[in-house]
Amino acid sequence: MKNFVYQNPTKIIFGEGTINQIGKEIKNHGVNKVLIIYGGGSILKNGVYEEVTKSLKEHDVDYVEVSGVQPNPVLSKVQEAINKAKEEKVEGLLAIGGGSVYDTTKAVSIGCHYEGNVWDFYERKLKPKSAMPIFGVLTISATASEMNMGSVITNEDEDKKWSCGSPVMYPKVSIIDPKVQATLPPNQTANTAIDTMAHVFELYFDGTEDVDVLMEYSEGIIRTTMKHVKVLLEDPTNYQSRAQLAWCATLGLNGSNGVGRSGGDWASHNIEHSLSVLYGVSHGAGLAIVFPAWMKYVYKENIDMFERFAEQIFNITEGTKEEKALKAIEELKIFFKSLNAPVTLKEIGVKPEELDEIADNAAMQAPLGTLKKLEREDILEILKIAYK
Amino acid sequence: MKNFVYQNPTKIIFGEGTINQIGKEIKNHGVNKVLIIYGGGSILKNGVYEEVTKSLKEHDVDYVEVSGVQPNPVLSKVQEAINKAKEEKVEGLLAIGGGSVYDTTKAVSIGCHYEGNVWDFYERKLKPKSAMPIFGVLTISATASEMNMGSVITNEDEDKKWSCGSPVMYPKVSIIDPKVQATLPPNQTANTAIDTMAHVFELYFDGTEDVDVLMEYSEGIIRTTMKHVKVLLEDPTNYQSRAQLAWCATLGLNGSNGVGRSGGDWASHNIEHSLSVLYGVSHGAGLAIVFPAWMKYVYKENIDMFERFAEQIFNITEGTKEEKALKAIEELKIFFKSLNAPVTLKEIGVKPEELDEIADNAAMQAPLGTLKKLEREDILEILKIAYK
Repeated sequence: MKNFVYQNPTKIIFGEGTINQIGKEIKNHGVNKVLIIYGGGSILKNGVYEEVTKSLKEHDVDYVEVSGVQPNPVLSKVQEAINKAKEEKVEGLLAIGGGSVYDTTKAVSIGCHYEGNVWDFYERKLKPKSAMPIFGVLTISATASEMNMGSVITNEDEDKKWSCGSPVMYPKVSIIDPKVQATLPPNQTANTAIDTMAHVFELYFDGTEDVDVLMEYSEGIIRTTMKHVKVLLEDPTNYQSRAQLAWCATLGLNGSNGVGRSGGDWASHNIEHSLSVLYGVSHGAGLAIVFPAWMKYVYKENIDMFERFAEQIFNITEGTKEEKALKAIEELKIFFKSLNAPVTLKEIGVKPEELDEIADNAAMQAPLGTLKKLEREDILEILKIAYK
Repeated sequence: MKNFVYQNPTKIIFGEGTINQIGKEIKNHGVNKVLIIYGGGSILKNGVYEEVTKSLKEHDVDYVEVSGVQPNPVLSKVQEAINKAKEEKVEGLLAIGGGSVYDTTKAVSIGCHYEGNVWDFYERKLKPKSAMPIFGVLTISATASEMNMGSVITNEDEDKKWSCGSPVMYPKVSIIDPKVQATLPPNQTANTAIDTMAHVFELYFDGTEDVDVLMEYSEGIIRTTMKHVKVLLEDPTNYQSRAQLAWCATLGLNGSNGVGRSGGDWASHNIEHSLSVLYGVSHGAGLAIVFPAWMKYVYKENIDMFERFAEQIFNITEGTKEEKALKAIEELKIFFKSLNAPVTLKEIGVKPEELDEIADNAAMQAPLGTLKKLEREDILEILKIAYK
């Protein structure tokens, strides 16, 4: 284990029927007016919006709102919300939605305390020093943004999907009611599970030695996610499976699974971000394509780790280390396919001649990864593996 | 999973060479004078005291001290420290030691903000409303007190070893340098591992259904603990094993492993507390005696859970559910024996005619447990099983 500092101040309120606590929590923080940030309006249909605003009114919390946050959330929406928050002199931000809404809200929180362009933080020109307090009601569990300090935003003018992280961006309170996720369509449920697995993979495969307890922890999250996403594809309203999938998503990237490691590999995520920005592919689907290809390209860098993965996740006990590793990568693809996720670039309509452009985009932040440091030519090779 | 609220604000600084950060952390909280609380003086020999006080001086943090905290820490020492803290007008408390020192410090923290007898909180007459800020340098990993809100104190006049918990008692900052634990004698190392396992057992066996991810998490902590304590009995200075054992101890009872459950069973701990208070047996050794006996008495209440335990921890795959459960309990005793821990009351000198007195003591808080609610006669039966 490497030395680490761990502190996660977010208060999680988890379970069925908890959304009506949001007004009280906000008021307890001395916040009297919030900007509600949400997406395309599913919260208007499933009753979440009504329940939240009722709770705000009951606790005399005034509110204004910005809606229309898209998957792969964009900078222009962040800027619109920052302007609104400043004009309306709100004292806090309230995210209602999934990771995209949370990530947008986090960008707004630091943008409200900064006179320059909030993108400066994503370009790593400077670090955020303070932020407007963030509250949230999570309606799609996948990114763990509800309990971490990270945000990923797409600058659509510059084709950059980049991240920013700071302790000032931890939400104060997040409410997770898994029941509201019962109406997610199957492909979105699948994508959330893939995203969770991918977060754990980034940490699991970062190459750090002597982290048994974290390897075990990671494997537990992966196995539980794989089990319950399958249940939900058959039985989408199964509350207990929604609850377990939701908590796995939070644990996958709330920091607890990353302590003592090198910080994660993140090459696959970075490559996937280029797919999202160039093709608008959903994050989970993009990860289902990129991750097995990345594994195939890098597994020799730490064959023992891939052997362990094969044994612990897919019960593969026969064969050489290499055979086990390769079989596990195939099994992973088969699993993703069983969720109806794409596993090749071809399936999402990418043309062979476009791989160079994707590589160029991803290579803007090269070298990527820690298990193997990837330059542009490595990224291109991974894309070639991912193609077919 | 049951509904839950989770928030753990403690900042953990983990790793080799981190103790010198304590002065800065305390100063960052605006605290200029602390009461140092410690035990029997091992920190004077191993250099920890010197390193801490050097750091305090470098950051202009004034200090006074109370030493002599014993294992199974007592109320009279708590009261001595409260008086000192009040007289000296300190602004914070600094625990240097293991769980006993931390638990004492937590009792002092609420006692300093209360005019009455601090034992009132342990009697559950009222709840603490505020506390003096707690900082700590952990030198023995076992209780997770460094990252939780609980404290167990023995009222030696009334033969009560009772607990108190409140969010105001979370330490602000705990530094865990596993390297300083390299000099722990083998029996203490074994006891810390048993204590960690016992905490996980209390949660694991509390009977809550649909908590796969937490069962997996628990099993990971148990397997990692069992692996690395064995390494350390051969090679006490193995840093990586010390680090993994230390982090397992923290995870075992920092709340992360308890979410979504019923709160843990805790019958075995309560029975053990009576052994500690009446015989002065160390907590880990007492748990090695009580836990297998408790398991033997209650396993039929949830045979599936004990079967899972048998399979996941001891790879027992043959036999009926009952055979697997009983074999696992035997394997657990064999494991504790391999750590040179006692596994019967006889071994620690308890006489058969004393079992009633132990049962009386433990039954003061009856009914105990959640998997099976234990009254005095149940406790006596468990003690009979534990005897031989």
